[in-house]
Amino acid sequence: MQIPYYVDLLGTLVFAISGALAAFGKKLYQDIFGVSFTAFITAIGGGTLRDIILGVHPLSWIADGNYIIAIIAGVLLTVFFKQYIKRIPRTLFLLDTLGVAIYTILGVQKSLSHEVNPIAAVILGMVSAVFGGVLRDTLINEIPLIFKKEIYATACLAGAFLFVILNHYGVQADINFFAGVGLIILIRVISVKYKIALPKLED
Amino acid sequence: MQIPYYVDLLGTLVFAISGALAAFGKKLYQDIFGVSFTAFITAIGGGTLRDIILGVHPLSWIADGNYIIAIIAGVLLTVFFKQYIKRIPRTLFLLDTLGVAIYTILGVQKSLSHEVNPIAAVILGMVSAVFGGVLRDTLINEIPLIFKKEIYATACLAGAFLFVILNHYGVQADINFFAGVGLIILIRVISVKYKIALPKLED
Amino acid sequence: MQIPYYVDLLGTLVFAISGALAAFGKKLYQDIFGVSFTAFITAIGGGTLRDIILGVHPLSWIADGNYIIAIIAGVLLTVFFKQYIKRIPRTLFLLDTLGVAIYTILGVQKSLSHEVNPIAAVILGMVSAVFGGVLRDTLINEIPLIFKKEIYATACLAGAFLFVILNHYGVQADINFFAGVGLIILIRVISVKYKIALPKLED
Repeated sequence: MQIPYYVDLLGTLVFAISGALAAFGKKLYQDIFGVSFTAFITAIGGGTLRDIILGVHPLSWIADGNYIIAIIAGVLLTVFFKQYIKRIPRTLFLLDTLGVAIYTILGVQKSLSHEVNPIAAVILGMVSAVFGGVLRDTLINEIPLIFKKEIYATACLAGAFLFVILNHYGVQADINFFAGVGLIILIRVISVKYKIALPKLED
Repeated sequence: MQIPYYVDLLGTLVFAISGALAAFGKKLYQDIFGVSFTAFITAIGGGTLRDIILGVHPLSWIADGNYIIAIIAGVLLTVFFKQYIKRIPRTLFLLDTLGVAIYTILGVQKSLSHEVNPIAAVILGMVSAVFGGVLRDTLINEIPLIFKKEIYATACLAGAFLFVILNHYGVQADINFFAGVGLIILIRVISVKYKIALPKLED
Repeated sequence: MQIPYYVDLLGTLVFAISGALAAFGKKLYQDIFGVSFTAFITAIGGGTLRDIILGVHPLSWIADGNYIIAIIAGVLLTVFFKQYIKRIPRTLFLLDTLGVAIYTILGVQKSLSHEVNPIAAVILGMVSAVFGGVLRDTLINEIPLIFKKEIYATACLAGAFLFVILNHYGVQADINFFAGVGLIILIRVISVKYKIALPKLED
């Protein structure tokens, strides 16, 4: 299944908002450069790392100015409507979850079409979805979300794994896509709702 | 306009000095490896990231040993003449400003010649100028200079933007080059002299 | 000399163990994702950066699933036999030293076969050996080992330099390989045994 182009742009916008909001939380970054830079890094980080690892050029935001326009839109929305956006944390959580889920499966699809072995494709799918957030958190000096309590990257790995398995058995691409995305959303929602974390390994 | 080769090497040397000096400020890095490594990262960081994003190979310091010789020269100058160099902070500031300005416009030029959309070229120009410094500051565990009070990366963005605009309207390459470099230097000098910062966004 | 394939895989496994053990030392990372992710980054970091800088694709762990299997094996060994592994710190030190030495010379060889000038090849050899450890230490928020007291990266540089010199004078590849690896191990063992550090530069 081909993800519609505007879904990809919407994902970029959502990631930009998450980066801009994070920057607003830190005094140091509360000018238009700090907020824009953090938004930019968050939005393009994962796909950029994935494409550099795959050796795919040009990167999408390099070839197509619409990605940067989506990021600028995300920054402006955050600057002007911050208080409204913050009032809808659940909406933001769902958007982030949807974005991460779609980017994971997109990343797996793209990896499989570039000489990538299936296990590496699962890892690259996860990386392309979460690395922007890792850069965002590192930049504002927070512990990356992927290492925090709730199940985050592991949900992406599970969805990516399901996609690779179904793909291997020749399941139709559309079903496969929704199965992968759905599993990620399901795990993420359940783990947040019931505060489920991965078990600690005994020391 | 073709930047003379030795200007590029001189920029590398100046960035290496700035990295070596920063390492001397931290106990942990005060041996010849720590100082050299920080100088190296500072000098090649921006151009390396730009070329990796553009997919341009081989990188200049990989193909041409003179860049590394320039870095070694910067390290030796710092090790042996540190006290003299520190006495000329204004000279260093001007060298850094000149280096950053030239690298920005060089980065924009190179990006435009590689299928890059104009907005992405502006961003890549800025990134190639400032990323070495970001790595330097991260390595020695300081808040990156680009997030500090004075206008730094934003000056690069402004100069890069002017260059792209003039270039679009077919202004002659030489004038264009000096206009971009000049604007960056102007903004940087004025913002430091009058302690002008970007306005904080209201929270 | 061609390094046997299984030596490369063994090196990957050893780096994975060192990453997994480091993650166990930090509360935050003590779940299966944190431990696996740190092991993965440690094992593939250096080679990935080297190949991205060289513009070589596909990366080995992308094309060949056995590298990831070696990492998973390293993680499982650490999870189930942690207490036994910790009892053999000297063995671990020797394995790490051997791994770093072999990766350095492998990196130099690979670089020289890709239009790389000799000094850059020395640096890239060192980088491919130590960068995984730098990522590991950064991730778990420790000062990178390469900046700590004992001679580490400098040993790699020395061995890589010897290799490049001997190679330049046409010494037979096998002798050359063992000379480079041997020098790295020798310097590393002596510097740890006698607690030799690089001299501090006077401030």
